[in-house]
Amino acid sequence: MDLSSFLTSLTTSFLIFVVLMLLFTWLSRRPGNEVVYYPNRILKGLDPWEGRRRRTRNPFTWIREAVWASDADVVAAAGVDTAVYLLFLSSVLGILVFSGIILLPALLPLAQTDHALKLAYQKNQNLTYNDLDKLAMSNIQVKSPRLWACLLGTYWVSFVTFYVLWRAYQYALDLRTTAKTSPEVKPEDFAVLVRDIPPPQDQSRKEQVDSYFRALHPDTFYKSMVVTDNKEANQIWEELEGYKKKLARAEVVFSESKTTEKPEGTRPTNRTGFLGLIGKKVDTIEYCNDKIKELLPKLEEEQKKTLREKQLPAALVFFNSRPAAVSASQTLHAQMVDTWSVMEAPEPRQLLWTNLSKKFYERQIRQYIVYGIVFLTVVFFMIPITIISAITTLQNLRKLLPFLKVIVDIKSVRTVLEAYLPQLALIVFLALLPSFLMKLSKAEGIPTQSHAIRAASGKYFHFIVFNVFLGVTLIGTLFSSLKTIIDHPKQLVTMLGESLPKNATFFLTFVALKFFVGYGLELSRLVPLIIFHLKKRFLCKTESEVKEAWAPGGMNFATKVPNDMLIVTIALCYSVIAPLIIPFAAMYFGLGWLVARNQALKVYVPSYESYGRMWPHMHARIIAALIIYQITMLSYIGLREFVYAPLVLPLIPSAFIFAYVCQKRFYQAFACTPLEVAASQGAKEVPNMEFIYTSFIPACLRQEKSEYADAFEAAQSQPQPPKPSSL
Amino acid sequence: MDLSSFLTSLTTSFLIFVVLMLLFTWLSRRPGNEVVYYPNRILKGLDPWEGRRRRTRNPFTWIREAVWASDADVVAAAGVDTAVYLLFLSSVLGILVFSGIILLPALLPLAQTDHALKLAYQKNQNLTYNDLDKLAMSNIQVKSPRLWACLLGTYWVSFVTFYVLWRAYQYALDLRTTAKTSPEVKPEDFAVLVRDIPPPQDQSRKEQVDSYFRALHPDTFYKSMVVTDNKEANQIWEELEGYKKKLARAEVVFSESKTTEKPEGTRPTNRTGFLGLIGKKVDTIEYCNDKIKELLPKLEEEQKKTLREKQLPAALVFFNSRPAAVSASQTLHAQMVDTWSVMEAPEPRQLLWTNLSKKFYERQIRQYIVYGIVFLTVVFFMIPITIISAITTLQNLRKLLPFLKVIVDIKSVRTVLEAYLPQLALIVFLALLPSFLMKLSKAEGIPTQSHAIRAASGKYFHFIVFNVFLGVTLIGTLFSSLKTIIDHPKQLVTMLGESLPKNATFFLTFVALKFFVGYGLELSRLVPLIIFHLKKRFLCKTESEVKEAWAPGGMNFATKVPNDMLIVTIALCYSVIAPLIIPFAAMYFGLGWLVARNQALKVYVPSYESYGRMWPHMHARIIAALIIYQITMLSYIGLREFVYAPLVLPLIPSAFIFAYVCQKRFYQAFACTPLEVAASQGAKEVPNMEFIYTSFIPACLRQEKSEYADAFEAAQSQPQPPKPSSL
Repeated sequence: MDLSSFLTSLTTSFLIFVVLMLLFTWLSRRPGNEVVYYPNRILKGLDPWEGRRRRTRNPFTWIREAVWASDADVVAAAGVDTAVYLLFLSSVLGILVFSGIILLPALLPLAQTDHALKLAYQKNQNLTYNDLDKLAMSNIQVKSPRLWACLLGTYWVSFVTFYVLWRAYQYALDLRTTAKTSPEVKPEDFAVLVRDIPPPQDQSRKEQVDSYFRALHPDTFYKSMVVTDNKEANQIWEELEGYKKKLARAEVVFSESKTTEKPEGTRPTNRTGFLGLIGKKVDTIEYCNDKIKELLPKLEEEQKKTLREKQLPAALVFFNSRPAAVSASQTLHAQMVDTWSVMEAPEPRQLLWTNLSKKFYERQIRQYIVYGIVFLTVVFFMIPITIISAITTLQNLRKLLPFLKVIVDIKSVRTVLEAYLPQLALIVFLALLPSFLMKLSKAEGIPTQSHAIRAASGKYFHFIVFNVFLGVTLIGTLFSSLKTIIDHPKQLVTMLGESLPKNATFFLTFVALKFFVGYGLELSRLVPLIIFHLKKRFLCKTESEVKEAWAPGGMNFATKVPNDMLIVTIALCYSVIAPLIIPFAAMYFGLGWLVARNQALKVYVPSYESYGRMWPHMHARIIAALIIYQITMLSYIGLREFVYAPLVLPLIPSAFIFAYVCQKRFYQAFACTPLEVAASQGAKEVPNMEFIYTSFIPACLRQEKSEYADAFEAAQSQPQPPKPSSL
Repeated sequence: MDLSSFLTSLTTSFLIFVVLMLLFTWLSRRPGNEVVYYPNRILKGLDPWEGRRRRTRNPFTWIREAVWASDADVVAAAGVDTAVYLLFLSSVLGILVFSGIILLPALLPLAQTDHALKLAYQKNQNLTYNDLDKLAMSNIQVKSPRLWACLLGTYWVSFVTFYVLWRAYQYALDLRTTAKTSPEVKPEDFAVLVRDIPPPQDQSRKEQVDSYFRALHPDTFYKSMVVTDNKEANQIWEELEGYKKKLARAEVVFSESKTTEKPEGTRPTNRTGFLGLIGKKVDTIEYCNDKIKELLPKLEEEQKKTLREKQLPAALVFFNSRPAAVSASQTLHAQMVDTWSVMEAPEPRQLLWTNLSKKFYERQIRQYIVYGIVFLTVVFFMIPITIISAITTLQNLRKLLPFLKVIVDIKSVRTVLEAYLPQLALIVFLALLPSFLMKLSKAEGIPTQSHAIRAASGKYFHFIVFNVFLGVTLIGTLFSSLKTIIDHPKQLVTMLGESLPKNATFFLTFVALKFFVGYGLELSRLVPLIIFHLKKRFLCKTESEVKEAWAPGGMNFATKVPNDMLIVTIALCYSVIAPLIIPFAAMYFGLGWLVARNQALKVYVPSYESYGRMWPHMHARIIAALIIYQITMLSYIGLREFVYAPLVLPLIPSAFIFAYVCQKRFYQAFACTPLEVAASQGAKEVPNMEFIYTSFIPACLRQEKSEYADAFEAAQSQPQPPKPSSL
């Protein structure tokens, strides 16, 4: 790619971004769109515009608002997890800015004034180079003392990373602690999740759990809730909720049909068969009412049965003070470590109920199997795609699906399809990958949503670094020299140093495209806007259906984080080799930070809160990227025949030591709540233990009527009078 | 070594053993020797012979007593650690007996009836073989289907090991739990060791610790004791104790000198200078009295100063119930994980006071440095010995120490010395090794004696396996092919399979010698007996000096365990290759078990109690030996060109999985006390908290007089009224 085409692509991207931003400014102020652009504020019951004139046409207002909001505002609006994601973006921005301040003025002139490319060109006229290439390190001649600058640059970037990450870890911990010590009563603070309960001996599981914990925590045990197999109850409940929605919808349709001409209206009808297409035609309102009446007692029956007979070997145990719950969650209870394993209870909403009762060794085995599958997916991901492509050749498709014949036999269609079918398979596969990885992570037996997302994000990171970053870099040389790599793994390092510089411009364009177009789309929310308006016009009848149509959901960290991490890896690896990437990457993270902050304050509603447990995960991966960078530089400077190249070597162990020290110093406070924090949670008042308890009852087991309360006792224990929290 | 010389060596060893056992029978019944043969019982205030006639000359009584004693007796007499050591011996015995039952009748005839050695001899007359060799697997021809027996034998030994180890781990845990749940009040059950206390802010360290723990454990905190730098106080205290002993001795000497001829006696005198050889001559009794009078206030002064001014960043914190202490010891206290780290308090007597205040990162760094030193020692241990040998050649010695000239110049002396000096250096080095490793382990910053012993034992195990087992095995081929190994590490495995069979007879003799002579010496206690009688006659004057002379001390696990582990490794590795080793190794462990049981019941007085925390350590090392064995067999069967040799391969991962499962299932209950156990410790009564507290005060800080009590307050906190333990 030469300079002009690079500039063209850059300009195009930038124009798209400007258009999208203007669109955003215009659209977000149109009436009826506020639920798409300010759902977070609306759901909190706040005025979307906070007294500002709605029609301000200034397209930069949102930037001012995003910058001026404090971190406390962000935490209040979108939770600690989002704040930690913003911290991640700003930390990387910090690393890039600090690096750039030194590297750009130091390295660009050094590269510009050397002549390696020119000399190479004189020797071999086939080589081409452009002005961009002249700004990269490849323009420095071999053995040149200018390579000292590369070496020192590597040190500078590494130490900047260490410094920024250390500060950021500290800050993330502060965010977590501040949120954790808020006086608000959070049910999960008083509970402990118990798994691997051994089979009970001549007593119900309920009695077993109660007697066990009452004996070990006589002063602080409050109640327990045995996890039950809710599959059937849930099925009935969902059916019931379906009919309720249908009823509400039918009633709206009916009342809307009461026009002035036809005051009695038309009662809506539907068919009872498959998809409402076949079967008997019935009056929808009556039918739904009948069904609801029929299902309610059935649900009650099933609830009772579930609570009594379907108790599983897992439980939630409630304590009457935070420090008691924290202490209990960290103390080894049973002699046999694979029984009665305890952990801090997660939020009720992020419990993965079906995973709770999975046994200890089952979890271990599942984990290793999943790791195996992921490893195979990462390493051999091209193979299934090749197979799919082979199956989906036109010839095969024609045989399998004869009705396509007519289309396929048109020559122009055929040419296009033949060219794009393999790519299509790749795109479909890549689109399905995140949810596939999420399914795999859940199959490990992980008990919480947030943990599953972290696990999926980790898997996606491996995939992206290996297949996109290393894939693009080495694609030319990789397959031809696969045998070399297998025989001499060290060769991979050399190849990194050789191939990376060649792809600098490609990645530069990639980053620019990604931030201008990606963030433009993210900010303007064009896709959700269109979907919302389509749904509202053609599908939604009731208020709640409309609300569902604009419900924004949470940020999708499972794909956002690994994608950003790819840019981190690219930016670090090229920071010295092609320092021009630094401003682009810095813009990516700066703009990303602004947009994410805007979306956090106004759009997304987090679906869980893990108090920033994503941070250690991000931290570890930034360091992993740094180590890839250091290895690349070692190889790159070595290939330039610079005798002092081994001086890069000490950086690699120092990165490991840094990771180790951080892990030792901070990690445990993320993995579990320190007693200090639990004890300082402003909790002089006695919490409403019954509220805490009921908030953990899954929706399908909640009582519809109050007279039904006693049935619940089967999976409840007699509460002890709550005792005021100790601090 | 041919059969006759093997039998000669065996017979000699056996005769030595019989003589030593008869000696033991005779000596142990001689009056005055009971303190050497029954010190454990005497110290417990029991009758050494328990009503049996003292003069029974039956040399097998001790065997009956050892076998008939229950494990509860052993635990009562010698603690859980010794019981676990006995369990280790009996487990290995079990593995060997179970293996032998199948392997001996199956493999010996198979080997005996084949002709590989004969055929080899026919080809090459230089090869020699004897009847012993014909009983080993080397007599089976290559590619013979008889090698199936070797393969199945390997499986049998592996699974027997898994079975026995699983049962033994369970049993060790039971032993630990039974001992831990005894109703006896053990001070360490109520305390927690706190390290890495951050620098205090405008308060004393004492106040800081108190306020911190009182805030976090308001209901259960009792008191704290800040660790102080006792170096100087200890020095004064030791000096004082020295003078007290000297005084007691002088008084005995004086009263003994009052004979009928000279009723006024001779007052003993001594010189005050170096070693009592120079300086002013003084009356010892007066001198000591003066010194004691002088030192007592000095000690008091230093004690006060230490408690007030020399507080270190570590403390013992006391709780008023066992579950509270256990919970606290397992709960993360501070946000910064490298501050306020807590762990279960060890027994007062096994605290390594000087290590307690070492900071978190210092401990980590020290640990890695020590690992480095140990690695170098293990790998390059021949180098310092060679250097020492070079320095201690006779020529050099003559130059350095000219006064030796007269002796060295005698020709016969010279010849002997020249031959033995290098060996002498080796022996001295090997003798110093255990205490060197112990020093290294303590330098890691380990807080307890038992942990340091485990660490030293682990280091010694590495040394012994690498240098003795692999050293002897590969010595012939190792140095010649060191380059091959470095270039192709896989070669080592092949070499194991090649060299091991050649050394079978050597190890057979080694094991036999070790148990007959070693256990004979151990049982007869000849060395301690001689030392005791010498000391008693020439040195000891007072009662306490005599008592010191026969004090038996504890078993030295730091060297005993690795030495036994060497035999385990040898026995496992040869179990199939030369099955004849099985009965000898079984005798080693059987006899060892008997002798150790006898010594545990009657002789040794354990110097600490760690409730069997040695077990996981032994368990891991037996599995390590098993894995070495499996690798050896893989290589051995492979070298015999047996096509099914790769079938041994699955055993290696299965051993790792077994180790992993055991670790997950049992280890944590050894690493810390489960709440279950702490809560079931019969503790309805309120413990005497003041007793618990004072038992942790180091000897040099104990108050001599009662009026001095208030001075202690500087490092004490105001106690809360003890609360009855919760269960």
